[in-house]
Amino acid sequence: MAKVAIVMGSDSDMPVMSKAADFLDQMGIDYEMTIISAHREPDIFFEWAKGAEERGVKVIIAGAGKAAHLPGMCAALFQMPVIGIPMKTSDLGGVDSLYSIVQMPSGIPVATVAINGGQNAGILAAKILATSDAELLAKLKDFSKEMKDSVVEKDARLKEVGYRNY
Amino acid sequence: MAKVAIVMGSDSDMPVMSKAADFLDQMGIDYEMTIISAHREPDIFFEWAKGAEERGVKVIIAGAGKAAHLPGMCAALFQMPVIGIPMKTSDLGGVDSLYSIVQMPSGIPVATVAINGGQNAGILAAKILATSDAELLAKLKDFSKEMKDSVVEKDARLKEVGYRNY
Amino acid sequence: MAKVAIVMGSDSDMPVMSKAADFLDQMGIDYEMTIISAHREPDIFFEWAKGAEERGVKVIIAGAGKAAHLPGMCAALFQMPVIGIPMKTSDLGGVDSLYSIVQMPSGIPVATVAINGGQNAGILAAKILATSDAELLAKLKDFSKEMKDSVVEKDARLKEVGYRNY
Amino acid sequence: MAKVAIVMGSDSDMPVMSKAADFLDQMGIDYEMTIISAHREPDIFFEWAKGAEERGVKVIIAGAGKAAHLPGMCAALFQMPVIGIPMKTSDLGGVDSLYSIVQMPSGIPVATVAINGGQNAGILAAKILATSDAELLAKLKDFSKEMKDSVVEKDARLKEVGYRNY
Amino acid sequence: MAKVAIVMGSDSDMPVMSKAADFLDQMGIDYEMTIISAHREPDIFFEWAKGAEERGVKVIIAGAGKAAHLPGMCAALFQMPVIGIPMKTSDLGGVDSLYSIVQMPSGIPVATVAINGGQNAGILAAKILATSDAELLAKLKDFSKEMKDSVVEKDARLKEVGYRNY
Amino acid sequence: MAKVAIVMGSDSDMPVMSKAADFLDQMGIDYEMTIISAHREPDIFFEWAKGAEERGVKVIIAGAGKAAHLPGMCAALFQMPVIGIPMKTSDLGGVDSLYSIVQMPSGIPVATVAINGGQNAGILAAKILATSDAELLAKLKDFSKEMKDSVVEKDARLKEVGYRNY
Amino acid sequence: MAKVAIVMGSDSDMPVMSKAADFLDQMGIDYEMTIISAHREPDIFFEWAKGAEERGVKVIIAGAGKAAHLPGMCAALFQMPVIGIPMKTSDLGGVDSLYSIVQMPSGIPVATVAINGGQNAGILAAKILATSDAELLAKLKDFSKEMKDSVVEKDARLKEVGYRNY
Amino acid sequence: MAKVAIVMGSDSDMPVMSKAADFLDQMGIDYEMTIISAHREPDIFFEWAKGAEERGVKVIIAGAGKAAHLPGMCAALFQMPVIGIPMKTSDLGGVDSLYSIVQMPSGIPVATVAINGGQNAGILAAKILATSDAELLAKLKDFSKEMKDSVVEKDARLKEVGYRNY
Repeated sequence: MAKVAIVMGSDSDMPVMSKAADFLDQMGIDYEMTIISAHREPDIFFEWAKGAEERGVKVIIAGAGKAAHLPGMCAALFQMPVIGIPMKTSDLGGVDSLYSIVQMPSGIPVATVAINGGQNAGILAAKILATSDAELLAKLKDFSKEMKDSVVEKDARLKEVGYRNY
Repeated sequence: MAKVAIVMGSDSDMPVMSKAADFLDQMGIDYEMTIISAHREPDIFFEWAKGAEERGVKVIIAGAGKAAHLPGMCAALFQMPVIGIPMKTSDLGGVDSLYSIVQMPSGIPVATVAINGGQNAGILAAKILATSDAELLAKLKDFSKEMKDSVVEKDARLKEVGYRNY
Repeated sequence: MAKVAIVMGSDSDMPVMSKAADFLDQMGIDYEMTIISAHREPDIFFEWAKGAEERGVKVIIAGAGKAAHLPGMCAALFQMPVIGIPMKTSDLGGVDSLYSIVQMPSGIPVATVAINGGQNAGILAAKILATSDAELLAKLKDFSKEMKDSVVEKDARLKEVGYRNY
Repeated sequence: MAKVAIVMGSDSDMPVMSKAADFLDQMGIDYEMTIISAHREPDIFFEWAKGAEERGVKVIIAGAGKAAHLPGMCAALFQMPVIGIPMKTSDLGGVDSLYSIVQMPSGIPVATVAINGGQNAGILAAKILATSDAELLAKLKDFSKEMKDSVVEKDARLKEVGYRNY
Repeated sequence: MAKVAIVMGSDSDMPVMSKAADFLDQMGIDYEMTIISAHREPDIFFEWAKGAEERGVKVIIAGAGKAAHLPGMCAALFQMPVIGIPMKTSDLGGVDSLYSIVQMPSGIPVATVAINGGQNAGILAAKILATSDAELLAKLKDFSKEMKDSVVEKDARLKEVGYRNY
Repeated sequence: MAKVAIVMGSDSDMPVMSKAADFLDQMGIDYEMTIISAHREPDIFFEWAKGAEERGVKVIIAGAGKAAHLPGMCAALFQMPVIGIPMKTSDLGGVDSLYSIVQMPSGIPVATVAINGGQNAGILAAKILATSDAELLAKLKDFSKEMKDSVVEKDARLKEVGYRNY
Repeated sequence: MAKVAIVMGSDSDMPVMSKAADFLDQMGIDYEMTIISAHREPDIFFEWAKGAEERGVKVIIAGAGKAAHLPGMCAALFQMPVIGIPMKTSDLGGVDSLYSIVQMPSGIPVATVAINGGQNAGILAAKILATSDAELLAKLKDFSKEMKDSVVEKDARLKEVGYRNY
Repeated sequence: MAKVAIVMGSDSDMPVMSKAADFLDQMGIDYEMTIISAHREPDIFFEWAKGAEERGVKVIIAGAGKAAHLPGMCAALFQMPVIGIPMKTSDLGGVDSLYSIVQMPSGIPVATVAINGGQNAGILAAKILATSDAELLAKLKDFSKEMKDSVVEKDARLKEVGYRNY
């Protein structure tokens, strides 16, 4: 049963959203992935969002661009955490998406990550589930360790070859 | 039967929204006025928005601030024009509201007016109705004439008293 | 007789403006299309804008970039709705066009759509005309239905092939 | 044992941070509250952040303004979710705080809420804990219900007295 | 015969525009001052702007706020220099006015000064006239000298009393 | 003897600055063109700017990018009009250049044109000189006429071939 | 002999600049303080800036607002570090000052601190001098210790009285 | 023994950071260069930053992008000057990096240079060291002289070949 629902309003958001899915796969977390539009099919969207809890979903990851309403509308209909990913936009760079997602009114928070922050949304979902899953928390600590090692290695290589040959 | 629905997500938007109502009153256009929240009561909102056409509504005027989803969600559920008013916000000045309302995705336009543009939303609603109502169009032309006269008077006063005594 | 006038200040705006025309064609709405500059030929522009009502025009769609005055000047001279399309600009991304169009003073609204929102301008014009045209309203509902079906299909394909093969 | 840690870099952030504490109190969630500065006392901060997990903390709520590093540095040292609150600033309105908190690099997410979004941070923390606490989830649903009722009441009052007397 | 025309769209701009007039008075330059709206009375505005040259006007100073079209429309109708003053706005600080005035398309420049830069507009007008008026140029040099002396005096006072008593 | 001085801080600004020169050539106005840096060679710059009046210069056109000080420093040293061209920048789009040029303090105006507005700077210089040169004013009116004709032709072509073949 | 020169373009910047002076006093560092304008008295400014090195100055702290040229022009004329303080502005919040100071071209850096960052400019000047002054470095470490203690005390008080009585 | 430490959070910052190294090489200043992440390896980072003084480092140059915490955290742990380089970002152009670096709270300054200002960071580090190193100061003056000559040459070439052949 999927614990995380990944949802996007348009398939053009797939390259970013797939980074979230990749991370959940890496952590062994079940998820469902859906293309759904709060604007173009509000009825379908409503049923989907209201049914998420019953389907076992604990966290929704929603990505959207421009006047990005999808994450906020998920948060209006689902009582557990909603993570919002603001998509980069070609004209305003994504500051429109960011404001539309992060500036939610009192009462209905969306946990917003960086513009195009697909992987970070996946990590945040895992961290949320790890608050009650010691095994998952251990995996996240391993992941942290790997990130650390990767920086250490890069620095070692810099020390070895010098910046001109890096 | 109300031809225009004025809707706001929070009663703190009333000073701006009432300017729209004032203008509709001035033009003799019937309207309904509602406080409704797409985020806090999505079910009620859905029914309200989907029922608007049946109630005779031809234009919705929706005001909202910050991650302002109300106008866009109205546009997802109502097939005739939705006018959006971005509210000024204390931190970002209203640019968050503006982006959240105007940057709608292809397929679901919101007719956006200026930040805090309550009267202009009312005027735009009247102009929309005037496309099929010659009498209303005549009233709008009278209103234009009055605006013009008011500027002419101000200029006459300036010419008379000079800028130091204006 | 054209019900909608599509007007742009520069032929470089054509790729965006043609999206509005395409939609009006799709809905069977008559329109005229004009390149005209409020800055470079103000006299011609004045005659054109003041004559629009007599030519049967009910809605003007005006696109402009940078210090985008064309939509606002149309709204000063034409009493029915003017829809403004802010053009993306190479330096400021279109936020200059957006502010110049949406921040109209009280009394003279412009119904502003998203940056480069050509199709949405066409849709909004149709929605305005649909307030008094039941047949057109039915066509708009069909169009909405098609948008919905298109998202449903995309989601079905995602479910079938998975995001890695999408 | 505290499940949530509320932390701020400066006591001038107290009016916003106390809104988070108020909500946790309302939900009956234990929390600790600390004034700590990643910049002025990095050693103390490090020990505090690294010891949070052992103290039983499941979620950190960190508020900060301007070049707001506190939430991000918490996320570097604590493996479960960190919620960041960007403080409004007197010169840039809080967009500096927002960018400094939300634009975290890949690997280290901060769950960002709106500028000055103290209550929303508290709600988000509760939602996170509710992913494994059915009783808390029920309380959150009651809270949602109350928000809904409050809007319904406001609308009823508007219908009763009219907008001029509201 | 007035050499400079000072024009504003709204009498709320008077406190800024009067600074331009004050400076022209100080330099002994004749000017006319007008409240006129390109949006509310386009016909009157057109006649006024097209007649400026014949009235002897060499420079127009136009102030406007928000979607500030007045300076640009003056530049479309008057062949000599137009100076634009972007008004500070309560929501966007005047960046809307600035973009609407300075980002003019190729062919139709507006000489833009700082937000609320009333005095600077007056000075710039004088500098323009001084390109063919040696006496005025001498006055401008005297004015420069006075500004310089005023800074020298302030510094002398600081040196004398110290910053704590300044 | 050159009446206009075109000056830039870096030869990378040449593509924009040459548009100003092209226009002055077209109008038959003598100009000098110089690469000079207020930052890298302040002494040379000072002599150059202070000597401009004696060399017969009536208007300086100065282009600069980023923390664009060149136009403002020209205005500090030269008593007749200085026109500033903000250069587009690769990171901030030119808004840095624009603010650094247009937001001059009281007393020292710079006549600012659009970002990368090379031709408009040339036109504005010509308009300034035309305040005392009837022949040049006539040429500017011819240029206006040509711009107008060019738009008329484009519109005629659109009418002839339709937008799909334009 | 003064080791630090504090310079401002306008006495309205005094409240911010005095914070820098206060800190230098606290550290026992000699400084001179001057009101000087690169725009209004360029000759005086040039002599002052070029003479700074000879007067023993090792660091210049320059504050300026809007199109803030003073720090950059100091950096063009003085070979040791120049610290720039962007002043908050009433219309753009100080983002204009910030861009005009920090975005210096290659070759001429200005060490920029936060908007209105008077004290931080003083601290940075002290840190620069401390690179060759062990005694001063020790004083800076004491200052750091005091900042740390002050946060510790605030936290202790919070722990004692609780946030509701803080 | 290295007097300057160049540090970056990610090897993708190398093209910018290497410009700082190149300049230090040119001035004959010893430096160390390190890839280190305050977020991914906070323990390693802490030891590195706290040990810098003992290793003889007098100035740290830290580059970082997005929510750029590295320079500020260096300044929290190292008592002498820290120079921050905001990296250009693909979505927000680097304004996020800039705010995260420059808007440091009172007590902990970061000497911020332009977005992507690698060379300027190197120059600023040299200027800081030159406050106590007459020989280095002489080299910096030679470098200034070369920059000046390079502009003079470019101008000579322009004078010789004209702008059309430049």
